[in-house]
Amino acid sequence: MNRIPVGVLGASGYAGRELCTLIMRHPNLSLAFATANDQRGSTTQIGGRPITFVGTDDVALNAAELVFSALPHGASKEWVARARETGARAVDLSADLRPGNGCEGIAYGLTELNRAALEGSSIVANPGCYPTSILLALAPLAAQGLIAKDGTIVANCASGVTGAGNTPKREFLFGEVAENFRAYGVGNSHRHLNEMRATLAQWGVHADLVFTPHLLPVVRGILSTITVPLVRPLDDAMAPWRAMYDGEPFIELSDQQPSLRDVVHRNAVRISVSALAGTRTPMLLVTSAIDNLMKGAAGQALQNANLMLGLDETAGLPT
Amino acid sequence: MNRIPVGVLGASGYAGRELCTLIMRHPNLSLAFATANDQRGSTTQIGGRPITFVGTDDVALNAAELVFSALPHGASKEWVARARETGARAVDLSADLRPGNGCEGIAYGLTELNRAALEGSSIVANPGCYPTSILLALAPLAAQGLIAKDGTIVANCASGVTGAGNTPKREFLFGEVAENFRAYGVGNSHRHLNEMRATLAQWGVHADLVFTPHLLPVVRGILSTITVPLVRPLDDAMAPWRAMYDGEPFIELSDQQPSLRDVVHRNAVRISVSALAGTRTPMLLVTSAIDNLMKGAAGQALQNANLMLGLDETAGLPT
Amino acid sequence: MNRIPVGVLGASGYAGRELCTLIMRHPNLSLAFATANDQRGSTTQIGGRPITFVGTDDVALNAAELVFSALPHGASKEWVARARETGARAVDLSADLRPGNGCEGIAYGLTELNRAALEGSSIVANPGCYPTSILLALAPLAAQGLIAKDGTIVANCASGVTGAGNTPKREFLFGEVAENFRAYGVGNSHRHLNEMRATLAQWGVHADLVFTPHLLPVVRGILSTITVPLVRPLDDAMAPWRAMYDGEPFIELSDQQPSLRDVVHRNAVRISVSALAGTRTPMLLVTSAIDNLMKGAAGQALQNANLMLGLDETAGLPT
Amino acid sequence: MNRIPVGVLGASGYAGRELCTLIMRHPNLSLAFATANDQRGSTTQIGGRPITFVGTDDVALNAAELVFSALPHGASKEWVARARETGARAVDLSADLRPGNGCEGIAYGLTELNRAALEGSSIVANPGCYPTSILLALAPLAAQGLIAKDGTIVANCASGVTGAGNTPKREFLFGEVAENFRAYGVGNSHRHLNEMRATLAQWGVHADLVFTPHLLPVVRGILSTITVPLVRPLDDAMAPWRAMYDGEPFIELSDQQPSLRDVVHRNAVRISVSALAGTRTPMLLVTSAIDNLMKGAAGQALQNANLMLGLDETAGLPT
Repeated sequence: MNRIPVGVLGASGYAGRELCTLIMRHPNLSLAFATANDQRGSTTQIGGRPITFVGTDDVALNAAELVFSALPHGASKEWVARARETGARAVDLSADLRPGNGCEGIAYGLTELNRAALEGSSIVANPGCYPTSILLALAPLAAQGLIAKDGTIVANCASGVTGAGNTPKREFLFGEVAENFRAYGVGNSHRHLNEMRATLAQWGVHADLVFTPHLLPVVRGILSTITVPLVRPLDDAMAPWRAMYDGEPFIELSDQQPSLRDVVHRNAVRISVSALAGTRTPMLLVTSAIDNLMKGAAGQALQNANLMLGLDETAGLPT
Repeated sequence: MNRIPVGVLGASGYAGRELCTLIMRHPNLSLAFATANDQRGSTTQIGGRPITFVGTDDVALNAAELVFSALPHGASKEWVARARETGARAVDLSADLRPGNGCEGIAYGLTELNRAALEGSSIVANPGCYPTSILLALAPLAAQGLIAKDGTIVANCASGVTGAGNTPKREFLFGEVAENFRAYGVGNSHRHLNEMRATLAQWGVHADLVFTPHLLPVVRGILSTITVPLVRPLDDAMAPWRAMYDGEPFIELSDQQPSLRDVVHRNAVRISVSALAGTRTPMLLVTSAIDNLMKGAAGQALQNANLMLGLDETAGLPT
Repeated sequence: MNRIPVGVLGASGYAGRELCTLIMRHPNLSLAFATANDQRGSTTQIGGRPITFVGTDDVALNAAELVFSALPHGASKEWVARARETGARAVDLSADLRPGNGCEGIAYGLTELNRAALEGSSIVANPGCYPTSILLALAPLAAQGLIAKDGTIVANCASGVTGAGNTPKREFLFGEVAENFRAYGVGNSHRHLNEMRATLAQWGVHADLVFTPHLLPVVRGILSTITVPLVRPLDDAMAPWRAMYDGEPFIELSDQQPSLRDVVHRNAVRISVSALAGTRTPMLLVTSAIDNLMKGAAGQALQNANLMLGLDETAGLPT
Repeated sequence: MNRIPVGVLGASGYAGRELCTLIMRHPNLSLAFATANDQRGSTTQIGGRPITFVGTDDVALNAAELVFSALPHGASKEWVARARETGARAVDLSADLRPGNGCEGIAYGLTELNRAALEGSSIVANPGCYPTSILLALAPLAAQGLIAKDGTIVANCASGVTGAGNTPKREFLFGEVAENFRAYGVGNSHRHLNEMRATLAQWGVHADLVFTPHLLPVVRGILSTITVPLVRPLDDAMAPWRAMYDGEPFIELSDQQPSLRDVVHRNAVRISVSALAGTRTPMLLVTSAIDNLMKGAAGQALQNANLMLGLDETAGLPT
């Protein structure tokens, strides 16, 4: 079978590199180009094989049937449009086209919840890493109208440092991150809130949302610990998740607490649900783990691309 | 000046070792004995100096004017009683005598909140590490009656592995903890809840409490991220903390998010407060960092002992 | 095509688990059984899929065409013999059958150097992790007789903690290993020396060998830094390695210093060679990186099994 | 007693910050100024207390009786000269004035080996971190003429990342250093070689030296593993070290292998010595651990300053 050529814009960041690795190991795709303006002309090892970066301006976008953009927020949107003009499909890993960012009408790539729209799309907005982890955890409760309207959803999340990219900044040096832990984007100030609020609103969820991300001294992975107020207690806390996710290849429900170790280097979401004892309001604790570079970025992007290109949704994705 | 002899029961664990180090560097104390049944007779380096452990049974408790017990929960209570019989004062680092554990009437060693009772005490129950970090963060709101009665306090906490002790268990091997992160004691099942609920009830706080601890891949430190529902919005979110903690040598209020790095190896609590944007209910986000072995264990124990012995409260404590 | 059934004895350790993962993802093999006496009956997730461990005594060894033994040193030999009695081939990951351990005549599984013998073998002694990293680095110099007879080869090696297994011991707790580094097995006392000396002697190398392993605060990977005295200076330091390893799928020669990051989760050896400036004796510095659980254990074991079973040598091995 | 004012040039780097912390806790010194051109005017927390950085150009150098320069190599020399012109003494932590760098005649601050010269000095060149760890380990053998002239000393060293400073560079991001390990400055190309060779030559040591540093995924600490060829076997391998270092407050000889954990946050060198079995040439393995920011930089600088100022050599230094 001929391989389908795909390209990566912004390939020198962590998500871009992960995408290149996945594409090179994919049974049906080939890597048409990998751009990185700041490293154009340089050759790097990705997944054990050499790749030479080209400038984003220097590439013939139509050499690819589908273009992944891992360009920075703000810059990505324009390149997605250019790729479309050449006839290429596009998956945008930036925040530019996601819900709540003023660009409605673009298919939102939370794959498991949106397959019908994704299959026919020529542009897909790939979800943020935190929203992926939180929204996939909350969707089953939302679908059954179980979240208390006047309550507060509290999502405390912790991410490995690759979530912050590989631009050199002092705060992300090993000497600053190791043996450390801190919150950031506090007070509901993180950019991902718009994306989550817009999606929850579409789902008819009107509870308040408090979202506090933290920086973990690990390379990869996000754990979200979410307290959810319910309209009524549930006899079988896990039932909504089983109902929605039965048979999903990339969603794992677990009696054990999910850990980063369970999901890194895999395109998986692992979710556990516990009733909270000793509270007057019925509440659940939902924990959800993903690899921020896989299901939280490159893996889900490829999962979406597989759907857009009519391939097996799981092709080339480590489970 | 003559040094006051003090002893440590259960000195081979992380908190016990930290206590020995602090005592050896203390200007007014000397280490009368350090017990460790499983290592009796062996000599170890603590803080650069050799210490020989003796059996807990083999020690003359009255060789010390004050005894610190870092023995396991359950076993500690009896040894505190024995120490008292010999006339020694005692600081119990175990959970045995803390509020909510069926032993009311014992002075509770949250030092900054309880000095009057502590100065005259012969027995002090040293607070748990998580309760120290959470209760010191909440006390200013409780004192002003600002916490909404029918709301939910959500405390998400993350601790370094020394909080789990140094008994060899597979789950705490480097190969299991590194590059990992997970919740434990979920569903409001952690032992420390009783201690916190009893104390909050004494303070007149009747909000629900959700407490979820996590295991961090770091050696030391606890960060607590606490969402608190208020009876009314505050113009100056930090005001209650300034009012209560002004001049406290070990409490640091900060505009910056506290990190573990700010507090490790120091007997400090660092607290930051942020209003939460975009919620209908007025809420605050309070974050609090301590070193679990210092302000969360050995440091606060020594702070209490200083008070009990009539010494300068800050003597021998790294700030 | 029918899959060939293979079994793993001692599957609950780090190397055994890695083997199970590789087998489950292998295109031509199936996992007939996975034994773990201390966890018999328990089900665990390996590579995202559940595996139920059985007792080593309870298994029909002939359910497998080939048995991998990852049992402890000393215990393994007997089980390899039992497997052979049932007609199964065997790859022994323990030290029991390796050169220098009194069991000559067994094929030694340094795959790249010994293919002819391995293809027809029914038993293979899989090399130790340190010997794999050191011997593959030295073989090209040995083959050309370039190592000075009366000189000293100094091999300083550092390994991640999975090299020490997952039996709970205090010295391998996260609290002891993190932010730490130390030598062990000093003074040429490490068990792997016999294996290396016997192999070097077979190759006609008579230089002294000093081998000092160290414990790294990482999960996986070995880096060996080797100083080698030469019989004469080399114009092109890398030439012997290119001559011997050209076209090898799992050996990577690099101008850049190899790092653990380059090789973890891959069945690769990455080698770099530098001339040493400012010494009277001509010497080379050779550095070599492997993943101790892959090329240093499970990966090489599978590479050998592929050869023994007439499969493509690279089948199922991540490059 | 009045405190002696001292200043720190280049105070925003890791060594400069460590110096400020030590000075603020010193019983006899006060911090007159702390300069950092790139952060002038900003206030930072160092050791729990706020410090406001000033520009290096803006400071009155004679406000200090002694100036520590932690400025970059190349820039430091000029500022040491300026400080001297104002009458201040100076300790230079850069490489500018060290042996082998073309500036002979400056007292070299390997304190334990050079006290007589240091006490009367107005300028001291503080040793590099690697040289401190290696030279203090080798000095006892050199003093007794025990190192084989025609042999090779092989020093493999590994350092935590604070040794590389806190200038943001991609290679030192947490995402690059964690779970990694690699050699650098290979082939005897590291700047510290001149300093070591010049010093060894002064000591009459003419063996070849091979020095290979490595980057550890830890914040602090250096471990040096050194193979030394001897002129004859030693009955009591530790005897030369005991003879030279008996009573030294900062040098610890140990039967156990020294680890980083033993020395971090302390101004200590911990050394262990083992005979090497199975070699024709008599050789020793010497291992030596220091904290690169303490005995390897700020601690030793303060130790030297104590001598220069007529204070107790151990004042203000954590043991």
